[in-house]
Amino acid sequence: MAEQSTELAELAARLRRLEDQQEIARLIASYGPLVDSGSADAVADRWEPDGAYDVDELSMNGRDEITAMVAGPRHQSWIRGGCAHFLGPAHVTVEDDDAVAVGHSLMIVHRDGEFVVRRATANRWQLRRGPQGWRVTRRTSRVLDGRAEAPRLLAALDIDQEHRSEEDR
Amino acid sequence: MAEQSTELAELAARLRRLEDQQEIARLIASYGPLVDSGSADAVADRWEPDGAYDVDELSMNGRDEITAMVAGPRHQSWIRGGCAHFLGPAHVTVEDDDAVAVGHSLMIVHRDGEFVVRRATANRWQLRRGPQGWRVTRRTSRVLDGRAEAPRLLAALDIDQEHRSEEDR
Amino acid sequence: MAEQSTELAELAARLRRLEDQQEIARLIASYGPLVDSGSADAVADRWEPDGAYDVDELSMNGRDEITAMVAGPRHQSWIRGGCAHFLGPAHVTVEDDDAVAVGHSLMIVHRDGEFVVRRATANRWQLRRGPQGWRVTRRTSRVLDGRAEAPRLLAALDIDQEHRSEEDR
Repeated sequence: MAEQSTELAELAARLRRLEDQQEIARLIASYGPLVDSGSADAVADRWEPDGAYDVDELSMNGRDEITAMVAGPRHQSWIRGGCAHFLGPAHVTVEDDDAVAVGHSLMIVHRDGEFVVRRATANRWQLRRGPQGWRVTRRTSRVLDGRAEAPRLLAALDIDQEHRSEEDR
Repeated sequence: MAEQSTELAELAARLRRLEDQQEIARLIASYGPLVDSGSADAVADRWEPDGAYDVDELSMNGRDEITAMVAGPRHQSWIRGGCAHFLGPAHVTVEDDDAVAVGHSLMIVHRDGEFVVRRATANRWQLRRGPQGWRVTRRTSRVLDGRAEAPRLLAALDIDQEHRSEEDR
Repeated sequence: MAEQSTELAELAARLRRLEDQQEIARLIASYGPLVDSGSADAVADRWEPDGAYDVDELSMNGRDEITAMVAGPRHQSWIRGGCAHFLGPAHVTVEDDDAVAVGHSLMIVHRDGEFVVRRATANRWQLRRGPQGWRVTRRTSRVLDGRAEAPRLLAALDIDQEHRSEEDR
């Protein structure tokens, strides 16, 4: 019976790793649908209260600034014209209560009856497990237009030890 | 031993939730390859016998109509010219024997030696677990060209209680 | 207790199937970020030492040739100009120590201040489980420009029995 207890604990630990991967993939898969439907609060809720969303031309700090971006006139005009924030499957790495996910996104916009790729972007998501589950602590996005920062973001698949949660070090 | 039985049952339930998510993601991941290779019966087999596929300009009811669309001259000419029905990772929600998956798709076509995005689309998949596993009961697709129905489809990530299977209510 | 042992073994087998699916999806999700950041050795390490990467215009055999492609002047110039190898979620099938994954990819390039879809591609990945986990034995990629080989690649979702590992037959 002691042996079965150990086996059970091992299975539970493996299961939790899969659940973590799946929960994080699901969070990221919600971003595009929510942002393209203007669900501003639901987008912001994917971040921690003081989480950051750092895009080339714009740095948002905290949920209110993320909500304001989605609800703002510029983003709303994309939605009215037709747009798709199309995210690919991210490469997710989990260590205890920290995670990093790296992947591409496309912003496709409808313009003059056609669809164009407005930009292709490199994304690095840093996430933390809290009482309500996984939340984004920082998303860094850089457009893949030749600037060196964008490929650099894609090269770092692992968790940056400097940025792990305090409690895990 | 009673305690271990309970733990086993809990692990089995968590495992099944992951399997459901994974099976549904896999079903959706099969759509693009099958439709772009003209595998008409295999595409239709992803739906329940009386399942619906509701696209802007076309409403298909039942497997025969889905098979006919894939085998039809219009779709076959896309394949001959070169096309990719490129689906992103969907956000999947499972409740017992019902599920909803929401995500984007792109239709990319080869034209005059170039590739163009013919359309970017919002998709909502409703699925049901049956004796042969998960099948689509309804896929609703609306092009993201500014029409209000498309973002509305993306806003509804959860299962619509009105549309759950009879037996689960 | 004998009954619980059997249940444990069954749970462990189901868990392993999910882990295999997830590990393979994660390997494929690493390709785009690694190739777009010029991480030549890390890309090659996803293949078995003698693995093959068979693209329309180029056939690479073994890790050294894959590393050379990523580190080579042509690929490096794509990175300098800005590019995204955007892979969709693949349909994965695992049988013991063999697996097949089928899916689409897009190559998006930055050109004259705009982003264009340079090609849409059909991919079939064959993988094998080894002592270090899953590795690619062959990736076959054909551009979806109307050539018949590309849709044919997408039609074959299952494991080709001829190509299974010797030890599993």
